[in-house]
Amino acid sequence: MKSAEDIVRDAQAWWTTEIIDIEPGKIAMRGYPIEELIGNVSFPQMIWLMVRGDLPTAEQSRLLEAALVAAVDHGPHAPSIAISRMAVTCGVELNNAMASAVNVLAGIHGGAGQQCMELYADAAKRIGEGAPLDEAVEAALDAYIAENGKVIPGFGHRFHPIDPRSGKLLAMVEEARAKGVVEGLYSQIGQQVEAILERRKGKRIPMNIDGATAVIYAELGFAPELGRGLFILSRSVGILAHAWEQSQQGGRIKGPMPKNIPYTYAGPARRAVPGKNQA
Amino acid sequence: MKSAEDIVRDAQAWWTTEIIDIEPGKIAMRGYPIEELIGNVSFPQMIWLMVRGDLPTAEQSRLLEAALVAAVDHGPHAPSIAISRMAVTCGVELNNAMASAVNVLAGIHGGAGQQCMELYADAAKRIGEGAPLDEAVEAALDAYIAENGKVIPGFGHRFHPIDPRSGKLLAMVEEARAKGVVEGLYSQIGQQVEAILERRKGKRIPMNIDGATAVIYAELGFAPELGRGLFILSRSVGILAHAWEQSQQGGRIKGPMPKNIPYTYAGPARRAVPGKNQA
Amino acid sequence: MKSAEDIVRDAQAWWTTEIIDIEPGKIAMRGYPIEELIGNVSFPQMIWLMVRGDLPTAEQSRLLEAALVAAVDHGPHAPSIAISRMAVTCGVELNNAMASAVNVLAGIHGGAGQQCMELYADAAKRIGEGAPLDEAVEAALDAYIAENGKVIPGFGHRFHPIDPRSGKLLAMVEEARAKGVVEGLYSQIGQQVEAILERRKGKRIPMNIDGATAVIYAELGFAPELGRGLFILSRSVGILAHAWEQSQQGGRIKGPMPKNIPYTYAGPARRAVPGKNQA
Amino acid sequence: MKSAEDIVRDAQAWWTTEIIDIEPGKIAMRGYPIEELIGNVSFPQMIWLMVRGDLPTAEQSRLLEAALVAAVDHGPHAPSIAISRMAVTCGVELNNAMASAVNVLAGIHGGAGQQCMELYADAAKRIGEGAPLDEAVEAALDAYIAENGKVIPGFGHRFHPIDPRSGKLLAMVEEARAKGVVEGLYSQIGQQVEAILERRKGKRIPMNIDGATAVIYAELGFAPELGRGLFILSRSVGILAHAWEQSQQGGRIKGPMPKNIPYTYAGPARRAVPGKNQA
Repeated sequence: MKSAEDIVRDAQAWWTTEIIDIEPGKIAMRGYPIEELIGNVSFPQMIWLMVRGDLPTAEQSRLLEAALVAAVDHGPHAPSIAISRMAVTCGVELNNAMASAVNVLAGIHGGAGQQCMELYADAAKRIGEGAPLDEAVEAALDAYIAENGKVIPGFGHRFHPIDPRSGKLLAMVEEARAKGVVEGLYSQIGQQVEAILERRKGKRIPMNIDGATAVIYAELGFAPELGRGLFILSRSVGILAHAWEQSQQGGRIKGPMPKNIPYTYAGPARRAVPGKNQA
Repeated sequence: MKSAEDIVRDAQAWWTTEIIDIEPGKIAMRGYPIEELIGNVSFPQMIWLMVRGDLPTAEQSRLLEAALVAAVDHGPHAPSIAISRMAVTCGVELNNAMASAVNVLAGIHGGAGQQCMELYADAAKRIGEGAPLDEAVEAALDAYIAENGKVIPGFGHRFHPIDPRSGKLLAMVEEARAKGVVEGLYSQIGQQVEAILERRKGKRIPMNIDGATAVIYAELGFAPELGRGLFILSRSVGILAHAWEQSQQGGRIKGPMPKNIPYTYAGPARRAVPGKNQA
Repeated sequence: MKSAEDIVRDAQAWWTTEIIDIEPGKIAMRGYPIEELIGNVSFPQMIWLMVRGDLPTAEQSRLLEAALVAAVDHGPHAPSIAISRMAVTCGVELNNAMASAVNVLAGIHGGAGQQCMELYADAAKRIGEGAPLDEAVEAALDAYIAENGKVIPGFGHRFHPIDPRSGKLLAMVEEARAKGVVEGLYSQIGQQVEAILERRKGKRIPMNIDGATAVIYAELGFAPELGRGLFILSRSVGILAHAWEQSQQGGRIKGPMPKNIPYTYAGPARRAVPGKNQA
Repeated sequence: MKSAEDIVRDAQAWWTTEIIDIEPGKIAMRGYPIEELIGNVSFPQMIWLMVRGDLPTAEQSRLLEAALVAAVDHGPHAPSIAISRMAVTCGVELNNAMASAVNVLAGIHGGAGQQCMELYADAAKRIGEGAPLDEAVEAALDAYIAENGKVIPGFGHRFHPIDPRSGKLLAMVEEARAKGVVEGLYSQIGQQVEAILERRKGKRIPMNIDGATAVIYAELGFAPELGRGLFILSRSVGILAHAWEQSQQGGRIKGPMPKNIPYTYAGPARRAVPGKNQA
């Protein structure tokens, strides 16, 4: 049987973290005293420090910042934004509205960037094993399609013929590559995916924001799951802005459409509950 | 009865926003094309733009950034962080873990900043109506206590004798005031609250991070509810970092304490279900 | 300084509950072994036991069951239901979709029953202090309106001229009163509210489902907050049914309205980012 | 280009459901008027109706009810319950606390029943294709292990040597089988899994509550995902009870362990922010 001392030791080890150290009057993140971080690192640098454990250079941070700025919002027709706006009209506070919305940034709605990073990573792995770029990307694409179907995450957009965010992001990656900030491998991979898709489909399927931010996050060395995490931090800004705007507009129990557009009932006609008379 | 045209018009107006304009190939936030924002505004400037509608100066943004950096985390004993870490061990993804955690940044856990901003705003209103600073703050404090009880949000900390984040934040406000970036009224109000509390309690109850970020957000003109919203954006970083760290540590269905510390049952002794034999 | 034994004792007391007792091979709720509860108590009886601590009679349970059955759903135009349906199209699982939806059953969307119970409770308190029924209800109504405005929770419905659920629920309360199962005081109070509203407004504002379930929950002795809790258990059924139906229908990133109904942008016209050229 | 009439038609079809039909003064679920359902069907029958589309017999409903009663709670060391209790101490309301908790009833924490139903379904499919029971179950088990690893969902328990809920549930299935209410195939499959595990491991790995409720839900014809959904409805009761109990106990910002058990920091030692002096 364990001694009380052992049990206390177990309990202290139950929550173990390398992120933050707190003593009375002292707080340090990843070893850096908080009072030295405040005013000396940018918010994107702090994000990087918290999830990665080290501080990025100003140039690395500039790329991360561009990706965070790019993805904040895509309008009230996105389920996450609509949910945030409806939620505040139900009487919840901003944190609750944001939670209901952030919760749906899942595989389909917010996960394209992560999936695209996994695709890029597969290609990079094949290149690392000696395959030429074009063959590596072709093989990674085929493997992706075999497992997940024909929709390639990060390419094409159901609304934008050309995503206005991608070009600027890729230009910034190219600038950073020229300065030696990043290697440029994932940028090449992404462009190769685009080239293969164009050849295969007979028309251009341009890289969208998910494909472009995936290039940036991969160039900067983030794990694919963190790609999703960074997207959530970015989109949380839009979710907050819309929740706040809706709270200023007012509205009570706002449904998805105005009341004068009834929904369609497609179930059975009215019928009697069986055995009701005996009940 | 409404015509189809009128119904369509109503439906188009149902979701109305001043935040984002989207057309095929074009996206603009608050009127600014996204491709011009990317690379030209910082993430804090983008946050400001989204929730306020205009772009801050670099100096204003610097203050906002300091507040965002300061509040990212306070360790796994905070319920929001513990929830985030436990959630990932249940099999959810990062967005879900973050949602369960962000959801509890409510009045008591994350709302002190907002409440402190309301206290400051009341004092500022009294000053605007002609009261001298000390009388205005005293009256605002008394009104707050009468309605909400003795705990003054933003002052004192149950763990830190002096909050290591406050001093640096207030020094940055003072720098900004000296440059004319902010007026400094809320900084004065905050210090006056501290002075009154010291006089009343006979010991110093120093301003904590909520009180200091409340000074910054109020100086920058944010509404109190947005103070909460900005705190959520900041703390989301820590929530993500801890969720990710826990996912790397592993663990399945992690409870709050190790199993060898049983919880206490304080209810009735075992008893038989009445009428069970007849059932 | 505390000994390890004291610390372990504190930790064991940290989570203290009167609800459930677990030992290896044994589980008891409120003292009743789970294997005796299974098959011998109904689900509504189990709900009562868990939140109240004792088992209701079959007749009490019958009333509770009627209220739980009545409130399961009010269609996809309710924000909670729409949220649940949109969520599954984003790639989350049923638990996540239900969470985003349950989260918005707040003061405005799901809290009318709770507020109505508070109104009834105020009237009952006045009666307990000696006021006649009509005066007590009039005074409680006036107090409610003074604090909360003119909308009386539990009465009137923006869609149903007469709520089809209320009459049946009230008839069951009357039956139960005739049998001595409940006292009938809250039923009288509810009817008196209706009578006063009709007199004041010059037209009937009939009791809706929130007003009727509030009568039942109050007659059965539930606290107002638990009225909200019971509503959540009931509405969770509809939320699950709709999430499941949507998942069978398919759909990806389903927004609130079809894409051919654009939302309205009401913000500033396109403008250049200031200082962009210098950046 | 679509006419306004066509757009309105599209919008009406956007939200289509077979679950609920609402007209002013009328509500029907699956065709049954709500006022006939209230008082005439039990809450478990209503749950079945909502998710399945038809009404179960009283005997079918009795089995469903047993499964719903069995799974309501497993104490405050379960993450979902701990989350619910911590949440209320942060200042959220019951709906929010329940949402944060329900959200984590995911694959690992609440999904064993669903996974077990999928295992049973695979065995049943093999039997339907002509395989004898023992071979079918052996093959299904091997396929499951090959894909998911050695942990078999629904069998064994890290706390209970024998789960006190399983025996009673299985006895009720046997009773129902004797009366012809269910076929008993999934009960046989479950027992065969147990027999194979005992043979392979050299010791009994008894069916736990997830395995037993999976037998019931499968016998009653529910899809595996709905098995998870029904578990959520059941566990929501415990989540509500604990949230409510915690709110009555009080507590503010309750962390996972008492403050006198510090968490363990395992990260880098204090270090200076690089380049801080130049900033």
